[in-house]
Amino acid sequence: MTEIQIAQSVTPKHIREIADTLRIPEEKLEYYGNDKAKLPLDLIDDQQIKLSKLILVTAITPTPPGEGKTTTSIGLADALNLLDQKATVVIREPSLGPVFGIKGGAAGGGWSQVIPMVDINLHFTGDFHAIEKANNLLSALIENNIQSKTRNLGIDPRTVIWKRCMDMNDRGLRTIIAALGGKAGGVPRETGFNITAASEIMAILCMASDLEDLKQRCSNIYIGDTWEGTPVFAKDLNAEGAMAVLLKDAMKPNLVQTLEGNPAIIHGGPFANIAQGTNSIVATKMGMSLSDYTVTEAGFGSDLGAEKFLNIKCRAARISPKAVVVVATIRALKYHGGKSLKEITQEDVHALIQGLPNLDGHIASLRSFGIPIVMSINVFNTDTDTEIQIIREHCEALNIPVALSYGWEKGGAGCVDLAQKVMVAAASCTESFLPTYNLEDTVSVKLNKICQIIYGGDAVVLSDLAKAQLRKYEAMGYGFLPVCMAKTEKSFSDDQKRLGRPKHFNIHIREFEIAAGAGFIIPIAGNMLRMPGLAATPAAERITIDKDGVIEGLF
Amino acid sequence: MTEIQIAQSVTPKHIREIADTLRIPEEKLEYYGNDKAKLPLDLIDDQQIKLSKLILVTAITPTPPGEGKTTTSIGLADALNLLDQKATVVIREPSLGPVFGIKGGAAGGGWSQVIPMVDINLHFTGDFHAIEKANNLLSALIENNIQSKTRNLGIDPRTVIWKRCMDMNDRGLRTIIAALGGKAGGVPRETGFNITAASEIMAILCMASDLEDLKQRCSNIYIGDTWEGTPVFAKDLNAEGAMAVLLKDAMKPNLVQTLEGNPAIIHGGPFANIAQGTNSIVATKMGMSLSDYTVTEAGFGSDLGAEKFLNIKCRAARISPKAVVVVATIRALKYHGGKSLKEITQEDVHALIQGLPNLDGHIASLRSFGIPIVMSINVFNTDTDTEIQIIREHCEALNIPVALSYGWEKGGAGCVDLAQKVMVAAASCTESFLPTYNLEDTVSVKLNKICQIIYGGDAVVLSDLAKAQLRKYEAMGYGFLPVCMAKTEKSFSDDQKRLGRPKHFNIHIREFEIAAGAGFIIPIAGNMLRMPGLAATPAAERITIDKDGVIEGLF
Repeated sequence: MTEIQIAQSVTPKHIREIADTLRIPEEKLEYYGNDKAKLPLDLIDDQQIKLSKLILVTAITPTPPGEGKTTTSIGLADALNLLDQKATVVIREPSLGPVFGIKGGAAGGGWSQVIPMVDINLHFTGDFHAIEKANNLLSALIENNIQSKTRNLGIDPRTVIWKRCMDMNDRGLRTIIAALGGKAGGVPRETGFNITAASEIMAILCMASDLEDLKQRCSNIYIGDTWEGTPVFAKDLNAEGAMAVLLKDAMKPNLVQTLEGNPAIIHGGPFANIAQGTNSIVATKMGMSLSDYTVTEAGFGSDLGAEKFLNIKCRAARISPKAVVVVATIRALKYHGGKSLKEITQEDVHALIQGLPNLDGHIASLRSFGIPIVMSINVFNTDTDTEIQIIREHCEALNIPVALSYGWEKGGAGCVDLAQKVMVAAASCTESFLPTYNLEDTVSVKLNKICQIIYGGDAVVLSDLAKAQLRKYEAMGYGFLPVCMAKTEKSFSDDQKRLGRPKHFNIHIREFEIAAGAGFIIPIAGNMLRMPGLAATPAAERITIDKDGVIEGLF
Repeated sequence: MTEIQIAQSVTPKHIREIADTLRIPEEKLEYYGNDKAKLPLDLIDDQQIKLSKLILVTAITPTPPGEGKTTTSIGLADALNLLDQKATVVIREPSLGPVFGIKGGAAGGGWSQVIPMVDINLHFTGDFHAIEKANNLLSALIENNIQSKTRNLGIDPRTVIWKRCMDMNDRGLRTIIAALGGKAGGVPRETGFNITAASEIMAILCMASDLEDLKQRCSNIYIGDTWEGTPVFAKDLNAEGAMAVLLKDAMKPNLVQTLEGNPAIIHGGPFANIAQGTNSIVATKMGMSLSDYTVTEAGFGSDLGAEKFLNIKCRAARISPKAVVVVATIRALKYHGGKSLKEITQEDVHALIQGLPNLDGHIASLRSFGIPIVMSINVFNTDTDTEIQIIREHCEALNIPVALSYGWEKGGAGCVDLAQKVMVAAASCTESFLPTYNLEDTVSVKLNKICQIIYGGDAVVLSDLAKAQLRKYEAMGYGFLPVCMAKTEKSFSDDQKRLGRPKHFNIHIREFEIAAGAGFIIPIAGNMLRMPGLAATPAAERITIDKDGVIEGLF
């Protein structure tokens, strides 16, 4: 069965029933059909949050075969529910870009999925669209002000860093010259689009604590400078009110369910390589307000997802996980050990051992935070007992509990061992996490700490452009912000070809971006695409719907 | 009270109750909150449609004071319900462009509004967003194909007529150079964005009879030519399946309610100057399937809205109105009579008489269709008895029944006289409308018939560019399509300064566009903006929301 066939083989419960298990009064639900509902922010309860156990799911360095982080998160939450724990999985919303690009959909896999799968992968409850509109309204207001004769703020069009966004893999929008067509068309300037998941509004939505904070963050967005060099903010364009109106529903987390009928909250979808890579603060807090265990994921490997989850999100939200699950596959470790995609389905003890340092690197990074770690091996039918034994012994030697997980094949029942080990680990956790850096550190110190403690590298090297930008942003008072590293997900280093656990490398920061509204400074290591293109053979070409409404090609 | 205060002073009924008055089984409803629902297309019933009476609301040539067509449509439907008739109003969805531009909202006015007003004016049920995504997915696939080394169709980038779209007044996107940034960014070319309401996908959605027809129309979209001059269609990019998947929910009409708790269907929103200017065929048919009277509107004056409503939409849908209501205001007629905005609130019998020829022009045009006409005077408190008597006598001399309407001030109770006259007119209608032209006519004949019969002009003059384009499109087999005229709404002519009832003018067609999927050829008279800009002081600047969620500035 394909993912979509599995997803459609299960009849969803009415979302009212799911809400009922969380003791949400029905009048609080805002229905989107029978299987989706938005949850108002007044359900967030700081007292319950203190009592709730947050579990972070992260992974080794991603490889083409994939690790199954979302699948494991969903399977773990289902397994906790099987063990009579009140557990909710809280994950990100998929972007349409990858849906039409390569992946064709993303909401877990096999028997560990969230449903309604088709809706979640398409427009869902419209959050991405609302983010796009708020982003692009600000762009239109900027363009309109530059054009204005009477209310012109004197914005120097060459300095405008604010880009439009679109939730689509469209390389043609990455770099454009806009406002052509003569006097009525505006003042021509070079600009571009980011994919919505990489937009600052997405980052803001995921950092905001409520609607008022959201509006405040929107007002603080730095868009460029006047001809005299004075910084211009969204508030100077009176943009924040209308932006907040556009985002009023998008701010509310979405309640859906797993295939096993357990609660799932899906909200916000920043990418993890170029943004903070985790669902919204309000969604995580909502999960914690309503359940004893909240299982959540942070995108890509722990060097990107977990680092930003902890240092940016958890610090801002004043929450801390009780355990961190690291997802690994034997296939991926063999890939890190130097094997090709064709070779990794065969037993290869040597390659596995060669790949283990990648695992060790993630364990070392995560140990710096002081939170108990559980290793989850996402088992495939090509894995051999010998290979499994090797990784088991390796982790046990490091004093890390290991569970074999079968979420894809068996749903929650395949993750009971993992759930039990997570419960033990969480019970043992008595402290909050230790951040990698202090907010008072200079940006340079912050970067070097991340490079050394998390990546295992030597030092951070700034380009001349990056140095100049950093001087400017520090002078503007942004030096105290956390950093949201934009780096390839394919290596601890900034070179995607260096698999395993590279040593003796520097991280090269090409430029900085500032997300003054979201509240972080973004160092960009290398050439990070903020607007991807479609694949050579786009998934869109095989996606279709017949006259009875049956959809194919999403999986 | 402002529009939004009136709208928010009424507690909406649960949409289940509204559906119940239409005898829609609850299991057919797809809820979007408690006050909005999508209606599946299988509720459309051809037998019921034959028994239902369709009422078209149109207007004189629009002027800055506005005529109140939507307000009259809603008031009329409420009045018909007061008279124990089962009536539904079917109107268009507002575009965000005008909401943030000048108008600040559009869903009727005063006590004749549809609610939830804020939702309807913002994201509503996401239809515009879905249209935008389907449109822009095709753009991304085009860009990707031009970039492709292995699957390249040989599209000549200079010939691509397909544009991206965005539901935003953003003049900076009207003309752009896309795909810059070197080899990875695509092949640079000049292109641009239309506002979503002017996109072909919007037109297609409003013309399609079901999902299968929608997919077929998407596949027929003409996007440009190969280097050899062969036409390229969306189907050549395998785009139609994924586009239809994106549009599967947007295809379903949306059920909401009037302030008086009567059913309203809101679906599709093409502009009337540059597109067909009326709600979707499926929405109108849905209204007719569920009610005895279906009141609908077509945008701007009858020269644009009603002409296209009848010759394009009704012809394709095989439906015909039983009566046409022409909305006029005494203020607007004085404006047509040469007075300024400041002067029209004072009694001015001479100016009113000078303005009446505009009314006569619309009556003459509409009489060509052979459908009974009712004049609705949207009364303002500055209108005097003398002025009202003049217009009343003028229409009675033409044998046109006249009603005074107070929908803004009194809701349905203010439109009972209109409703009674409409019922009499509808009962007298025994024939289907006479189209202005036959589909077998050449494009040139079609245009001249519209010019002479509807606009009262002399002839249509084609530019050299238009002549060349027409030869090409006729050679491609599109000569048999209906024409969707793009012309200023401010005059019967193509010169917006010629108010009243201009005589002795030609219509100048600057260029043609082809909407092969929607199924019409678009002659563009003059310089029509398909992507507006924001106003000097955009409405967006005064729109805001406070911490309790109370919204201001939308009205």
